[in-house]
Amino acid sequence: MAERITPREKDFAQWYADVIAQAKLADFSPVRGCMVFRPNGYALWEVVQKYLDKRFKETGHRNAYFPMFIPESFLNKEKEHVEGFAPECAVVTHGGGKKLEEPLIVRPTSETIINAMYAKWIQSYRDLPLLINQWANVVRWEMRTRPFLRTTEFLWQEGHTCHADEEEAMKETLKMLDVYRSFFEDVLAIPTVPGEKTPGEKFAGAEKTYSIEVMLQDKKALQAATSHYFGTRFAKAFEIKFQDKEGKQQYVHQTTWGLSTRSIGALIMTHSDDQGLVLPPKAAPTQCVIIPIPKKGADNSEIMNTVSKLHEELSKHYSCELDVREGYSPGYKFNEWETQGVPLRIELGPRDLEQGVCTIKRRDGHKTQLKIEDVVKETPHLLDAFQKALYKRAKERLDSNTFVEDDYERFKVRLEEEGGFYLLPYDPEDKGFEKRLKEECKATTRCLPFHTNPIPGKRRVLVAKSY
Amino acid sequence: MAERITPREKDFAQWYADVIAQAKLADFSPVRGCMVFRPNGYALWEVVQKYLDKRFKETGHRNAYFPMFIPESFLNKEKEHVEGFAPECAVVTHGGGKKLEEPLIVRPTSETIINAMYAKWIQSYRDLPLLINQWANVVRWEMRTRPFLRTTEFLWQEGHTCHADEEEAMKETLKMLDVYRSFFEDVLAIPTVPGEKTPGEKFAGAEKTYSIEVMLQDKKALQAATSHYFGTRFAKAFEIKFQDKEGKQQYVHQTTWGLSTRSIGALIMTHSDDQGLVLPPKAAPTQCVIIPIPKKGADNSEIMNTVSKLHEELSKHYSCELDVREGYSPGYKFNEWETQGVPLRIELGPRDLEQGVCTIKRRDGHKTQLKIEDVVKETPHLLDAFQKALYKRAKERLDSNTFVEDDYERFKVRLEEEGGFYLLPYDPEDKGFEKRLKEECKATTRCLPFHTNPIPGKRRVLVAKSY
Repeated sequence: MAERITPREKDFAQWYADVIAQAKLADFSPVRGCMVFRPNGYALWEVVQKYLDKRFKETGHRNAYFPMFIPESFLNKEKEHVEGFAPECAVVTHGGGKKLEEPLIVRPTSETIINAMYAKWIQSYRDLPLLINQWANVVRWEMRTRPFLRTTEFLWQEGHTCHADEEEAMKETLKMLDVYRSFFEDVLAIPTVPGEKTPGEKFAGAEKTYSIEVMLQDKKALQAATSHYFGTRFAKAFEIKFQDKEGKQQYVHQTTWGLSTRSIGALIMTHSDDQGLVLPPKAAPTQCVIIPIPKKGADNSEIMNTVSKLHEELSKHYSCELDVREGYSPGYKFNEWETQGVPLRIELGPRDLEQGVCTIKRRDGHKTQLKIEDVVKETPHLLDAFQKALYKRAKERLDSNTFVEDDYERFKVRLEEEGGFYLLPYDPEDKGFEKRLKEECKATTRCLPFHTNPIPGKRRVLVAKSY
Repeated sequence: MAERITPREKDFAQWYADVIAQAKLADFSPVRGCMVFRPNGYALWEVVQKYLDKRFKETGHRNAYFPMFIPESFLNKEKEHVEGFAPECAVVTHGGGKKLEEPLIVRPTSETIINAMYAKWIQSYRDLPLLINQWANVVRWEMRTRPFLRTTEFLWQEGHTCHADEEEAMKETLKMLDVYRSFFEDVLAIPTVPGEKTPGEKFAGAEKTYSIEVMLQDKKALQAATSHYFGTRFAKAFEIKFQDKEGKQQYVHQTTWGLSTRSIGALIMTHSDDQGLVLPPKAAPTQCVIIPIPKKGADNSEIMNTVSKLHEELSKHYSCELDVREGYSPGYKFNEWETQGVPLRIELGPRDLEQGVCTIKRRDGHKTQLKIEDVVKETPHLLDAFQKALYKRAKERLDSNTFVEDDYERFKVRLEEEGGFYLLPYDPEDKGFEKRLKEECKATTRCLPFHTNPIPGKRRVLVAKSY
């Protein structure tokens, strides 16, 4: 069965498509550019939602929901914003059997409709800060799509906050970037490079854009999440003012931050192997599976009793499946759960039972034998060790493929031959730099990483090929 | 402040609008027919989602997500279905700056796109039952809208399941109807009338439609949730076949069931009063609020310490707020939390502290004094009693306004004068009955209630004015 997945070495893009198909994460739909999230894939998005929603609430945010249709005229209120998004829009021209007077845009992002409401809701400094998040579907017309990474309709969350001054808004911008960073590192086991986008790569309408960038197994970059400081640009376009403590009218300072279902693409591409999906335990909807290996023609009731008890105990603390389907061989089951990325497999056969042990196989191949009575006690350590091992492997990949490079010509050759991340000198005055990168190397600046920019005047920019 | 809410007696529709505005549940949007869910309103939807999602998973369902755009030709595949929905559709004609070859419908419901995928996924009896739910936004172009109850875009969940035979599918249909019933009764404290829709009122494309109907304070009916048995109609339209155990090709038997954000409208209209929103504890995002009443110019540290400790203890078990905002009087705070429907208010002033007691005010006016040290222990009983009291009040309203009536002329007069629910004799052969009801009484058949139809040949149908 494993050969149904194209090896990474042979064709990385096909490998990615095969992993998704075999793990039943997603399927192509009859609608151009749109994918179907199958239950296994949607369960990953539920993990993302559950963790982030909790963090957003802990940091004082509340959820709301705004209309997905935006009057065309709204999009035009902020100049850079409309230039950035208008070419990607889906347009509703008819409703209820009639042509509409004003066409409606299906939201590519919700700044304009949300800010129109904020202008109504905010009057006084007492109404600030306003900290709202929305979980929603958005549409951006894409020509070349790839499951999870780039689809015409996708799912995301968008935070939109208003503050009394720049300092507080900047603090929020960076705080939420760090929420994303810790989510990627601690839950998805994916190391990140946080930094600021160059002016050429910032969000349409933002003053400053920050992102976390991750490296996938093919050494390409993926922008995993962004957090923007808007200043007062949208506030001025939508007249969002408040009366401050001195009775003066002021514009609010705003932030926006978002993370989408492409995070699942990052997760798949970071850890998976030629056998299929690999999931870190904290991101796995199912953390362990128990598979009994009955002996043909024998009385297997003791095996069945033992795995049932084990399942009951483990289910108190973990998401644990017991696979007792009939008509499927243990080998078939091993393969199926492996393809779907379940971190731990617990096997129990007649010989194991005689010896009072279980065989535990970690998704990366690592095998352990444990006394049956120790399994429940040892499981947290096994899961934790696997989580750390996956992070370590990804961190080593990132570190060993990130290069400081001062010579542009040598960088071009190395990028082409080896791929990877390059920290090049950054000169904000060199306006043609990013255009040359795109034309000559099919690469882009990813961000000005926080950690490589300690000395003003000697800044470095992260450059890579990307998704 | 209370007079900002129009009394129910004076104008029920305006009262409903005022409660929503004052409790900050929703706001009108600049988009025709679409509303904004403000954080207080969305929090109610989160309660609905949390409870139902858990129940759906406990009953074996998994979530998935399908594209919101449906090619126009798909809608045409099931005849009754397209006739039912085509007039309400929003149509995307342009995407990415170009006119589309085939217009896309924004989903009014997802049968067609989901069944197109099911035809791909289902091959064998081993793939059954397929039990999938989707949380999504849907669009039905509405001429007259009302927040939560009827909006062009709304939020809902739609379950779509496939089964090997009719018996299993019917069991599923009724099981999910009962999940809704128990949610309404046990969580929202709203009694229901479950039953079967008449052929004239069933879902476009279904064989049988079941609903739960609820009575609002103005004695009108609201269809609170529906569950449909589809038979093999969509399976035939979309060629969803499986090989059974004998190797024969069979069509699957299907069900669909859904509940939307109109459930929040039912919640508001069932319990609220002229002071604002009233929420049963199990449906309340905030179950209790603690409001200290400091003495002006005095040292209030002991009051503040006491309420802090109480808040810490109560927060371990309940969603509890401590309102220590400065610059707002206790009276202002009382009113604000009351308007927002918080079930229990705990007050502590200097005199209370001296006597070692708290005053606890239930949202329906019921007052208790408790020793401070008993508050944590007594809170579950107070919440439980309030939950039951609200259900009881709503049940009495339903029972005392439901009438068995055999005389059609007398029914017409009574419906006009008193309103309420009427159980009329049901003759399935009388094809003009429902048309007459609409024209002569502006009423509709709601359902054939399970409990009034024990004797074949003597069936009764529930008739009422409705939302």
